[in-house]
This record gives sequence, structure tokens and C-alpha cells, in this order.
Amino acid sequence: MSRTYAIGVDYGTNSVRAIVADCADGRIVGGRVFEYPSGEQGILLDPRDPHLARQNPADYVEGLRVSVRGALDAADREREFSRERVVGIGVDTTGSTPLPVDERNRPLALDARWRHQLAAHAWLWKDHTSAPEAAAITTTAARHAPHLLRPIGGTYSSEWFWAKIWHCLNIAPDVFDAAASWVELADFVPAVLSGIESPRDMRRCICAAGHKALYAESWGGLPPADFLARLHPMLAGLRERLYDRAYPPDRPAGRLTDQWATAFGLRPGIPVAMGGFDAHYGAVGAGVRPGTLVKIIGTSTCDCAVAPVRDRMPEVHGICGIVDGSIMPGFYGIEAGQSAVGDLLRWWVEDVCEGDEALHARLTAEAARPQPGATGLVALDWNNGNRTILVDPRLTGLIIGQTLHTTRAEVYRALIEATAFGARAIVERLQEHGVPIDRVVCCGGIAEKNPLFMQIYADVLGHPMHVAGSPQTPALGAAISAAVAAGAASGGYDRFEDAQDRMTSLRPGACVPDPARHAVYDELYDVYRELHDTFGGVAGGRSDLGTVMKRLLTLRDRVVAGMASSGAEVAGA
Amino acid sequence: MSRTYAIGVDYGTNSVRAIVADCADGRIVGGRVFEYPSGEQGILLDPRDPHLARQNPADYVEGLRVSVRGALDAADREREFSRERVVGIGVDTTGSTPLPVDERNRPLALDARWRHQLAAHAWLWKDHTSAPEAAAITTTAARHAPHLLRPIGGTYSSEWFWAKIWHCLNIAPDVFDAAASWVELADFVPAVLSGIESPRDMRRCICAAGHKALYAESWGGLPPADFLARLHPMLAGLRERLYDRAYPPDRPAGRLTDQWATAFGLRPGIPVAMGGFDAHYGAVGAGVRPGTLVKIIGTSTCDCAVAPVRDRMPEVHGICGIVDGSIMPGFYGIEAGQSAVGDLLRWWVEDVCEGDEALHARLTAEAARPQPGATGLVALDWNNGNRTILVDPRLTGLIIGQTLHTTRAEVYRALIEATAFGARAIVERLQEHGVPIDRVVCCGGIAEKNPLFMQIYADVLGHPMHVAGSPQTPALGAAISAAVAAGAASGGYDRFEDAQDRMTSLRPGACVPDPARHAVYDELYDVYRELHDTFGGVAGGRSDLGTVMKRLLTLRDRVVAGMASSGAEVAGA
Repeated sequence: MSRTYAIGVDYGTNSVRAIVADCADGRIVGGRVFEYPSGEQGILLDPRDPHLARQNPADYVEGLRVSVRGALDAADREREFSRERVVGIGVDTTGSTPLPVDERNRPLALDARWRHQLAAHAWLWKDHTSAPEAAAITTTAARHAPHLLRPIGGTYSSEWFWAKIWHCLNIAPDVFDAAASWVELADFVPAVLSGIESPRDMRRCICAAGHKALYAESWGGLPPADFLARLHPMLAGLRERLYDRAYPPDRPAGRLTDQWATAFGLRPGIPVAMGGFDAHYGAVGAGVRPGTLVKIIGTSTCDCAVAPVRDRMPEVHGICGIVDGSIMPGFYGIEAGQSAVGDLLRWWVEDVCEGDEALHARLTAEAARPQPGATGLVALDWNNGNRTILVDPRLTGLIIGQTLHTTRAEVYRALIEATAFGARAIVERLQEHGVPIDRVVCCGGIAEKNPLFMQIYADVLGHPMHVAGSPQTPALGAAISAAVAAGAASGGYDRFEDAQDRMTSLRPGACVPDPARHAVYDELYDVYRELHDTFGGVAGGRSDLGTVMKRLLTLRDRVVAGMASSGAEVAGA
Repeated sequence: MSRTYAIGVDYGTNSVRAIVADCADGRIVGGRVFEYPSGEQGILLDPRDPHLARQNPADYVEGLRVSVRGALDAADREREFSRERVVGIGVDTTGSTPLPVDERNRPLALDARWRHQLAAHAWLWKDHTSAPEAAAITTTAARHAPHLLRPIGGTYSSEWFWAKIWHCLNIAPDVFDAAASWVELADFVPAVLSGIESPRDMRRCICAAGHKALYAESWGGLPPADFLARLHPMLAGLRERLYDRAYPPDRPAGRLTDQWATAFGLRPGIPVAMGGFDAHYGAVGAGVRPGTLVKIIGTSTCDCAVAPVRDRMPEVHGICGIVDGSIMPGFYGIEAGQSAVGDLLRWWVEDVCEGDEALHARLTAEAARPQPGATGLVALDWNNGNRTILVDPRLTGLIIGQTLHTTRAEVYRALIEATAFGARAIVERLQEHGVPIDRVVCCGGIAEKNPLFMQIYADVLGHPMHVAGSPQTPALGAAISAAVAAGAASGGYDRFEDAQDRMTSLRPGACVPDPARHAVYDELYDVYRELHDTFGGVAGGRSDLGTVMKRLLTLRDRVVAGMASSGAEVAGA
């Protein structure tokens, strides 16, 4: 059979990237990045509110056109490539990134009437304006419908669907009223490619629904209207205008319209795969399978795993999300994460040491010298709270063991080790609940560029650490979803696993643990866990230290608010 | 009565300073510093052993001659001054700094036979080669004579008299055998000035005897021979060649010889005061009295207080030393200390931030901005262990509360606050045991130059913080001891308190606590004490965290020793 190709389109925070991948081996034969033109690096900001982060939906549509065209133009330079042989197109996006649409499925923000209303634009994943609503959702669910919180680790986030829509209702009721429905970006783009002109006709992905919108088949889809009515009667009304059912990633979202086919020079009617979140399709593109944890390591991490669907959903306390079919059909998709990894090292190097990339390199070289244990330091990786397994944003950093001889490179190493200990806590929590993990595959620049980081992780975790073969695993995963949507008969694949076997790879040269170093890290991990459990407040009544970090944050808030409210400049000393 | 003057000679770590002070008001009318010419900045080092620190006794004698002459030459420029009007001479020194002498009271090191033997020189206070012997003394005393440890806070230090002499016996028995006796530098210099030609005829000061040599009248002077014999039979033998009695600082050590009087142009026979330690005479020169804590703040601190002698010696757990008459006659002299203050800030600025004096200034300015509590940070000041109140060198630093926005200036402030909390722990420990403290007088460059530091201390302690009027409080205290040795009839004073009233002063402008800031610091101090008691291991069985720092140090030692013994370079990662 002649070669076939699949397109993956990856909507990131600042840009969209399209790739054309060879279905036989996953090789990228063409790619193009489009930087969103609006706002600051593609993000609409509000100078009065640092928590606000919105995006212009026009950038999404323009980015789709430019990036896919560009990727195909680049692929044309390959002798064997032909646009006729593209069998499908898939999309991954950030999320939860919901946007309000009208009854024709057009984003409100594209309407001149709403263009200047920030609430009418897309609410980017990292928009944190909805913190009060998120807290109220958690509290209300904990009291009246605790089962709703089970798949999401017990805490509803301000980054998520319902919190954002409720906040819109509170601060911009006109936008809320004008919206026929709200759609996740991951569902919006496939609908655009498929020409679906009503929100009711869209297929929504289980990935966004289950992880962010409290959707589960076991309770009949979205949360019951009476629960939503406890939040706000208008949310219960909105429920009717959303969706009853969500779909796993192997069902096509639609078929490419003639118009888009003409614009791209592709065959009309090729399948458009279900959209999905970048982390999930990134996990697919990194070769996730039972026993493998995929870590997408950036400023923070997103950790993904899959577990075979058994009689009942595994309950893993403190894991952000466990949703049937959210990553691959036939498996529970499991999502966890660490709140600060790259950010923690950046903080140390750039903010504290006031250095730059060169200092990162110098400290990495110096930090490679001491043996495990030789710095005498142990740190907690909580400078940005703890996402998994404590699900507590009001935790802070801790470092112990400093002497007058402690160096900045030793602290740098201790911070890397802290994130590795945090990663081990996640792996052990999964293992304790019957989700075996014996291999870790990493994606992202830190994993690709920092061998010290990878070796410390291998030695701490006691498992081999791999780096994904593709530097574009989300786009590759989206292309894989397109190949699966096409099916084997059309030159794609019938199953995700089959596509992964052929289209994903690992970089040669995994980092393997050294037994002696692993043994030392076992001892240091014990110390980490003592500190973790004590200061994380899970050590029971043994110690008051479980509230120390929160007490300090509360005192800080009080002092800072007192300064602001007094209006007076009081000498700090 | 015409003006009179007293000379104070202050033997520091790197130099000796002589001053001529006006007995009427303590004004310094002449001074001269002499840098010790031997070794590195006056210290004889051993490149193979970083714990070794010795000094050449020849430097002491030459320094005496040059510094006193220079001070008198400078004083001659004052119109009213006349060498005839000098009524006495006093000496303070570092300690415990013992040196071996021959039967004529000459330092062995001045003999050509011993000149090249480091063990025959003076064992400077900060020589830490005797750690094993110190630990054995503590253990032996705890088992067989626990009362011996009571006045010294429970732990014998490697910096002290018996540990050093025992170490000499172990590593240089020829030197030990050749020594007719061992004398503290604080006793040696007054004996030289007084021409005392036998160690048996010297008057030893209670200050060195009581704080460093396990001397107390209640058990008959030096420790009993049977106790010393448990350490080493030769130490029991040495006891006979030391001293039976030690003297408080108001008894003259002797009278100035004709030879020295001629050399200096002074009247022969003027009293030479009892020597004393620099910190103790520094406290005298800073105006110590009941209710006042004198903090001599440098790289570490030495804290001194006095308490009226009552029926029995106060027992204050964790206070390094409580000795009747060691600072002023008629009072218990109480000595405490913090292991790292200036050193802690230096570590942060110079080692971690890799900055210099300019960065100290910048961080001080920036650290003055946040209100107490606004950094969200609390640190333990234990990077060099804890001298008081835990008496535990195997403790390390801790900092808690960091976010991704924490700045180096905020950490700098948190470290200053940590040392202030450590100071408060000492004050509260004294108060709990009936030693009232309601005023703090500081000496040293940090106190003189850093108003932020002083204000934080005032706000944390809730007491006014003063700075001593003289920048040379040890030399001034030694001059006061000389004025007291002379007595009122000779133009001096009969009592230390009378001399202090006239000769000491405070800088104008004490830092007073702000009640609002003090209230916030009360809350932060509670957190500090929770961390202090937990990680210091005094929280009882509530937590295993009391051993965390030691476990990390032990692991570090094991790892580093393993690397050294294996001889192999193992990749750190």
C-alpha cells in the first residue's frame, strides 16, 4: 500500500502548530507554527486583574488556515508526499478553554457587538478569575453531591468549565445571556473543520467533559440540573443548551467540508477526529500505555497514564482526574500534575540568583558533582502549591539542611530532587491503587536538554526514564487520532495502540537508575515524605505543623491587606 | 582631683589593640592596633587540617610592647594627658586560648627546641582539632560527674581548655611532657606585665577557669583528680601543676614591673588587673548590669548578662555558662551565644547570591520594605548549629514559606528575623529562670551600621535595642578593670558599677519596638518556636522530625566518606 499521511493541529498557549505525519512511522514531513496575533503573545490581558487570560477566537480560525496550509506546503517538498494521501485531520488544544458561541456555533467574540467584551472571548486555561466560583462549586458538591468530585480528585479548579461560565454569568450577564451555548476549544476546532453549524449538533470530547465539566455516564452526563441550580438557576438552564453525551477519541467528530478541503487541497470528506487536550494527545504521541507514565514537563508538569477499564473506576485519592476513555478508548485516562517544576528552577536561577540561561547551564554542571545525599539538603517542591497528591494550592516551599557552606548549585540540585520526589509520590499513589507504573516517558525541553535532571529522576524513581522520540508529541498524538479516525481500510489504523506502535518512538539512551544512588534516594525520600506528610497536613493529629504554611499565608494576606486598607506607608523597619 | 587614665589591651583573633581611656568619662585619648605578624593574619594553620588554628606567643609579647607604646604616644598629643596619671593596666583576650609554659612561665614556643612544633604554640579559641576529646569529656562527665556540666550548659566544647590539652597529650606527648603548666592567654599577659616567673605564682581569672576549665569553688576548684584520671592519668597529674584557686576581676593580677614601666614610661608598681575574656570585658565596657543583655554581634554572637548572686547558682538549661564573678564581682556571669548571625547574612549575600558589600546594602534597603509577616517566610538560624539554647552543633538551616515570587531580599529579611527569633529564645530562657532582661545593648559593626537589623530585633524582642557608645567595648572594659584595680583612692574606682556609670555610654537613639509590628512578630515567633522545638528535638515524642537534620548530616557524612574511601569518581548523575 502506498504511503498515507495524517494532519495534527496543536493549539498551544501562544501559538498553533500543524504537522503532517507519515502514518507508517510518524515521521513529520511538514510543519508550520502560527503565533496568535492578538494581545500579549496571543493572550488578552486586563491590566487591572493579573488573573485574567483570554484569547481571541479569530486567532484560532486564522491560525488553523495558516498553519495547516503551511504544513502542507512544507510537505509538498517531500517527493513521495501527495495531499491526496492525507487520510484525516486531528486537533488538540489547551483546556479547559471554553468560549461562548451563538446558535450558529459562531464565537460571540467574532460579532462586532461583543468584540470588545473580554468575557465574550475564549477563557484560556490559565485564566484564574473564577477562584470564588470554583471554591463554591467544591463546597456545594462536597455537601450535596460528593460523588461528582470523585473523578476529579476532590477539588474543582478555577481553571475549569463551570467555574468560568458561572463567573461570566456573575460579571458579564449580558454575555452569558447572549450565548446559545459554551464550547471547549477542543470541540470547537473540529466542529469548524466539519462545518457543524449548531452547538447541539457538535460532538463533545469525553476528555474535556469528564475532566473539566463534571460529566460522567454513571450520573447521566453533565451534573444534574438540581445540583447546578444550587450554584445558580441560570446554570441549570444552560445545561439544556450544552450536551447530553460525550465521545471517546476514536469516533470522528465529523468530515472535512468541501470549503476547507478546497482551501487546503485535501480530499473532501476525510474524517476530522475528536479533539482532545494537548496533554492527553501528547501522552498518546509519547506512547502512553498501561505501565507507562507520560510526564509533560514544562513550567509545571502534566502527568498522564492509562489503566484498563475494569468493573469499576479506580478511586485514587488526590489524583486530579480519572475518566473512562479520556486519553484512549478502552482505558481510564488518568491525569495528575506537579504545580512547579521548570518554574521552580527558573525561580531559583532567575529570581533568586538573578541569572540567565548561562547560569542554568553552570548550575547544572556544578549540581552534577555531589553524590545523592552529599548536599545534606531536602526540599519540598511546593512553591506553587501542590496539585497532586495533596490538591492544595495553599502550600509553600521548604528547604532544610543548609549550612554556611551550602552553595547555590547544591540548592539547585535539591530543587530538582524535590520535584523528583514529588513525581515519586504521584507514582507511588497510583501504584498503591492498582495502577502499575514501571516506565516513565518525558516530553518537553527540560527532559530533552538536561541529562542531570533525567538521571536524578531515574535514581529517585527507580525506573528507567525515557524521552519521547518526537519533540511535538501533542501534534503527533492529534495526527494519530486522525489516522485512527480514518481506520486501517483507508490507510490509517483501527486502534490507537496499533497506530502508536508504528508512529511513536523513544529517543535512544534511556536514563536507567543506579542501584546505589537509588538506595540513598530511598532514605532521602523517606525524609521528603515525613516533611510532605507533616507540612501537607496528612500526618494526622501528630503535629501542628500541618497548618504552618497556611498560617503564614493567612498572616501575609492579613498584613498586606492591612497595609492596603490603611492606605498608609508604614516603615517596614 | 586631676584627670587619671587607664590602659586597656584587647587581644583579638588577628590583632591586639591598646587604648588609653580617661577614667572620668571613658573617652579614648589614644589607641594603637598591632596586627600579629605570624601565619595567615596572625593564625598558624595546617594545610592538612582545617580545624587547626594556633598562634605564636611571640606575637603576643611583641604586640603588647608595640600597641601600648603606640597608644601612649597617641595619648601624649592630648594636652591634659600625662603618663604619670595612668593608674592601671588591664587585659582582655580571646579564649579559651591555652598555651604550654615552662617552669619559668615562658611559652614553650619561644624556645628554639619547640618553635617548629605547632602543638607548643597557643591553641587559639577557634582551634577545633580536639572534637573527639571534647565529646569524651562530655560523655564521661555525664556518666560519672554530671554536676561538672551544670555551669557550662551540659556540653564540653572542643574550643576549651581540657579538650585542647588532652588532644596535645594525644598527638604531641613530648610537648605535653615538656610543659610545666598550661596558662590561658588571659592569665598569661597580666603575668608577663607583672613579672611573675612561675606558673604556680600566677593568679588565674575565674572567667576562664569557670567557663572553660570546669572550675568551681563548690567542688574544690578544678575537677577532681579521679575524674581527670578517667580521661587520662596524665591529666590528673597535670592538675597538680595548674592552680587551686581562681580570682574575680576586681583583684589585681600583679603590679607593673620596673622593666615594663620603663619601656612604657609609666609609673612602676601600678596595678595590673585580672585578665578576662574579650566578650566579658566587652560586656563591662557596654554597660552590662542586671536586666541588660549585651550582645556582641559579629559572625556569631556572644551574649552576656549578669545576675545578682543569691543563695544558689541559677540553673538555666541550655545556657553555655553561668559562673560566679566571671564578668563582674558580686554577680553571676552568664554567657550565651548564637552560632551564626553575621555569618548567616554573609552566606546568603556572598555565597548564594555571589554579591559583595554593595549587595548587602541593596538587600538591606529592599528588605526594609515588607511589613513583618508580608514575606510569608520563617527561617531557623541554624546553618552553623545552635549554641544556645539547644547546645547542638548538629543542627542545620531551614526556611519555609517560599513561593515562586519570593525574592532574595525577602530571604535576607527572613534570615535577619531568624537570628532575632534566636535571640528572643535566649532572652525568654533567661527570663523563665529568673534572670530578668528588659534592655539589650549591642556591640559590633552590624549593630552600628544596620538600622534595619536593629529595628527587627526591637520589634521581635519587644525591648529597646541600644548600641554601645564605644566601638571598642572590650578594650574599654579592660581599662575599666584597670581603673577598678587601682581603686578610688588612686584615681580609679572601687566598684565596677561606679566605673561603668562614668566610663560607659550608649549611642543616642535606641530602636524602640513598634507595638503593631511586635504583635505580628509574636505570631511569627510562635511559628519559629514550633519549628525550633520540633526540629531541635525538644518537642518530645510527638514527631520524628526532631532527628531529621541529624539524619541528613549522617547520610551526608556517610556518602562523602564512601566517595573518599572508594577512591573512585562516581558520576553525581
